Parts: sequence; structure tokens; C-alpha cells
Amino acid sequence: MATANPTGDASNNPLDWKRIVEAHERIRARIHRTPVLTSESLNEMAGAELFFKCENVQKTGSFKIRGATNAIFSLTGEEARQGVVTHSSGNHAAAVACAARWRGVGAYIVMPKNAPGVKCRAVESYGGKITFCEPNVTARAETAARIQAEIGAAMVHPYDDDRIIAGQATSAKELLEEVPDLEAVLAPVSGGGLLSGTCLGAKGLRAEIKVYGCEPARADDAYRSLRSGKLQALETSDTIADGLRASLAPRTFAILRRHVAGILLVSEEEIVAAMKLVWERLKSVIEPSSAVALAPVLRRGGLREMGFGDGARPKIGVILSGGNVELKW
Amino acid sequence: MATANPTGDASNNPLDWKRIVEAHERIRARIHRTPVLTSESLNEMAGAELFFKCENVQKTGSFKIRGATNAIFSLTGEEARQGVVTHSSGNHAAAVACAARWRGVGAYIVMPKNAPGVKCRAVESYGGKITFCEPNVTARAETAARIQAEIGAAMVHPYDDDRIIAGQATSAKELLEEVPDLEAVLAPVSGGGLLSGTCLGAKGLRAEIKVYGCEPARADDAYRSLRSGKLQALETSDTIADGLRASLAPRTFAILRRHVAGILLVSEEEIVAAMKLVWERLKSVIEPSSAVALAPVLRRGGLREMGFGDGARPKIGVILSGGNVELKW
Repeated sequence: MATANPTGDASNNPLDWKRIVEAHERIRARIHRTPVLTSESLNEMAGAELFFKCENVQKTGSFKIRGATNAIFSLTGEEARQGVVTHSSGNHAAAVACAARWRGVGAYIVMPKNAPGVKCRAVESYGGKITFCEPNVTARAETAARIQAEIGAAMVHPYDDDRIIAGQATSAKELLEEVPDLEAVLAPVSGGGLLSGTCLGAKGLRAEIKVYGCEPARADDAYRSLRSGKLQALETSDTIADGLRASLAPRTFAILRRHVAGILLVSEEEIVAAMKLVWERLKSVIEPSSAVALAPVLRRGGLREMGFGDGARPKIGVILSGGNVELKW
Repeated sequence: MATANPTGDASNNPLDWKRIVEAHERIRARIHRTPVLTSESLNEMAGAELFFKCENVQKTGSFKIRGATNAIFSLTGEEARQGVVTHSSGNHAAAVACAARWRGVGAYIVMPKNAPGVKCRAVESYGGKITFCEPNVTARAETAARIQAEIGAAMVHPYDDDRIIAGQATSAKELLEEVPDLEAVLAPVSGGGLLSGTCLGAKGLRAEIKVYGCEPARADDAYRSLRSGKLQALETSDTIADGLRASLAPRTFAILRRHVAGILLVSEEEIVAAMKLVWERLKSVIEPSSAVALAPVLRRGGLREMGFGDGARPKIGVILSGGNVELKW
């Protein structure tokens, strides 16, 4: 039964390398192996060799399809029979709707009633059934729990789920397979699914690699949580990086405490400047949340924050998490 | 001597497959092997399986670096000693400046005095020396010839040169190596360097493939030339596709007469709509000239214009030629 195992840890094993490899096998034929791009001009600006993992061109326009596909195709036929349910106003919503369609089951998506129209249309385009709720965390969780109970749909949490984390880990795994001698990898952090997956996926192939999370200063709960050693709430999240407005869960916090080298905070101005550079130099349409992972490398002293000495010219991977942005034309 | 061989056909051999393979070997380590992207939503709109060859993320932001690198690294030490010269207001200018820097020789670029500032800055960023001239074809050719004579620099024509065409051919060669069973390839046409190279590069690996040129209706000289069998002048070129304002040369015209399946004309509105779709769905920043090659596939009856029957769902390659566009932010 879906409700019997709300954490998604079907096997009750710790999230080890074997489960990431299995996740990759499970999703490989359904998703894109996304390209890794480089830019000499960005390298020059950063004083580093940068390798951009382009999840913005992933199916549904973000890395979220990796975790959603792994979770939904991990369900038994019995578990999947009544469909899946989640709550999200963003990329996870579209990913769950898409992966559920591939599996041939219904997707029930709880979205806050102020969710942007473009995100709702994406969910609908994959056949997802939207239930609107009040725009707050409690209403979202309650509405999803009600659908889960009434319909018997299986819960696919955006990040507090080992199957999701194992799926998100495959992006860093592919990056390290392609560039095995990276010294550091940077990824944005919100609920921590991508960042904890990046820790596990990268360190599984190169134990000594340093993984940094990048976070808007205006939504700095991961920074405060890791600093204090206690899960901190996110009180305000007034940032242009609309994908980074969630906060860590116990499961992701535990992985990050063990594996992450640090959290780097960036300003709104740094996010916008980094986003523009990626559009101009990499010719890649990314959303603001993706730019958060590049911003620290570009600032004066950024490499030193990561422990690199002057003139080191380190090889650094940057996960460009998604490209879903409304184009004003 | 550079002046002894203005056509660039150093060997006087016809431009055969062997020279394309040699060009690829010569440039391979210096350029990107650009990714091939796909999009289910664009496939659905087109009723075809589309494979986008992303020259917009190529070094210098366009395919032009392929031909420029091949031409400049084909020069003997003696030929290259006084540097290289070309005339261009666009992507070829930046490509020549970049490849000349790699070779360690000077680059003299003749640009019309109304060339956009962003293009001039790109040339200067690679160390190219700009000479401005009146904005007309005669002034450009005369100024370049004068520099060639005075300095002894080797001429690197934007397209009327076998070394350039062989270099541009490597993009289609890579695309067919990756997707061997394409039934058609589409590329934009201006002077015809990319399109004639695409014919040779694609047909060298798959003789029966159909190669179409795509051209703005407002700059339709290739269409008229192939239709009449006589090289036609381009009288007006008032199109948003700023990279497609040149006209065919004898060398490219001869290749196209023999190999191209047809020229498809597109309206300005079709160009803008296709460009927006690529930004949105492929998450790729492309310039208007690139969108010209997608536009025919998207319109009602487009596949029939290429000889495909209803419900055929053909596999079609689209060369996205470049991504140099001024971002309004």
C-alpha cells in the first residue's frame, strides 16, 4: 500500500551507490543524457575550468524528471494502480505528470491557487489533474494527504524520498562519468533533493570531490540549518529564484550534514548577472534557480570560498537545474 | 603566396569526401563537437522526428569557426606569416579572428562602418584588427583586396573557398555520424558555404539523403538562382535574419545545383515564431538566421513540400547555425 510507506524507502536500505546505479538503469531509456557544455569566456571570467551539466534541456525542462521517473517506475503494479499524487507549484509537478503518463497511471497534482499559468498548462499538457489549494504549506500537504487517502494514489514527495534523491543523483553521476577529474561540483539547494543526490552521485565516483550547495541569501534556510546543526524554517523566500522556495527535510538534511562541503549564499543581483551570462555565452535558456549555482564562482574571492588557492584554475562542475522561464518577447 | 590562389583550392582537386575528412581531422581538437538535441513537443508540432545540431553553442557562437579554422590551419607557414584578411560584418569575422589567434597570426577584418557594436567587440575580443569601410559590397571587397596586397595577408573568403566549405561540411558529418538514418537535413542559405558543405557532408555518409536550403523570402537569391539556373543578384535583403544577407558565389552555386533538393522560402513571421519555439522548447538561444531552417517544417504542408507523404513522420536534421543575438534584458 502506498500509505504504508510514506517515506518512499521501499527497501529500508540506506541510500547507497547500488540504488543510484539501479535508478540510472531504470530511467536511462526514458530521459535525456544531457550535454555538458563549456565556455572559454566563462572560464576566463571564473579563473576555473567550468563544466555545465545542462538539465535545462532535460525532458520537461528540468532535472526533476529523473527523480519522478525513478519513483514512479519503482512502484509495484498494485501501488501504482490508483495513480500518484504530489504537491508542487513548479518543475516537480510537470515531471510527475509526465512520468505518470509514461507509466500509464493518473497524476493528481496539488497546486497553490496562485501558481503561474505556464506551470499549470505544463501539468495539463501531460494529462495531470490539478487540485488547487490555498497558497501555504499546510494546505498543500493536507490536500495531498486527502487525495492520497480518498483515491489511494501513491505519494511522490518532491524531495523527502530516497527514490527521488537516487534519481536526482544520476545527473552528477553522468557528469562525473564524462569529466572524472572534477574537483568540485555546485548545485542549487531548495528542499535538498538535487543537492543531496549530487553529493551521493558525485562522491560515489570520486570520494574526494567537494560538493557545494548554492542558495539565495533571501531563502537561506539550508545555510542556517547546516551552520546551526538544527533544521531551520524558511520564514521568507522573496527571491527571483522561484524554484528555490522550499526548505530542507529531515532526510535531505541528514545527507547534507554528512556530505556537503558548504553552502554559498548569493545575492539577487548575482543571480541575474549569472543568468544573463549563461544566456549570452552558453546560449542556454536557464531559469534563475539554475544561475544560483554559477554565481559564486564568478565573484571575486569565490574560488577562495571553496578553498582553492590563487591561480589554482580548478575543474568545477555546475548543475544547470532547469530552463522553465516565461519568455517576454 | 596568398594572392596566387584566390579561390583557396590549394590542391586544385575537386572538393571530395577525402578533403572533408581531412578538414575534420584538422579542426577536431580545436572546436566543439556540438550536441544534437531533440524535443518531443516540437516533434509533435512538426509531425516528424527532429534532430537539432546545435552550432549555436559552437566556439564563437556559430558554425563559422569550422571553416575558418580549416582554412587558416591549411595555410603553409609562409602563407600565414603576414596574417589573414577577410570582410564580414558577422559571425565569419569573429571566427577568423579567433582561428587566427589560435594559429598565432594577425587577423585583418574589414567591416562596414554600420556593423553592430556587439559584432565589432567580438572581433576585438579575439585580437582582430578592424578596418571600417562604406557599407556596400564593392567597398568591402576593395578594402580587403587592398589590405591583402599591402600587407601580404592571406584572403579567407566567407564562403567562396573550398577550405571553408569543407570545414562547414563537418557539422552535417557529425550529425549523420550520430543519427545515420536521417531522411532529410535543413540548413539556412546565404552565401551558400554552410548549405553546400551540408550537402557534401550529409551525402558523403548517406547518398540518398535530401538536403534543403531555407531562405527568407525577403532575401531569396538562392531560390531564384536555382530556379533560373543562373546566378541571381540579391537586390534587397530586408530580413530579421541578419546572417543571411549575402548571395551565392559561383563555387557554392555549382555545388548546390548538383546536390540540393530545393530551397524553401519562409516569411518573417515564420522566422520569429520558430525562433521563439526553439528558445522555449529546446532552451537554446539561437539567432534569427538559425530559425529559418526550422520554420518550413512547422508550417502546414511543410513536410509535403519536402516530398513526404501524410503520416510519414520522417527523421529530419536541422542545423541551428548560430546563437549570436543581442539580448534585451
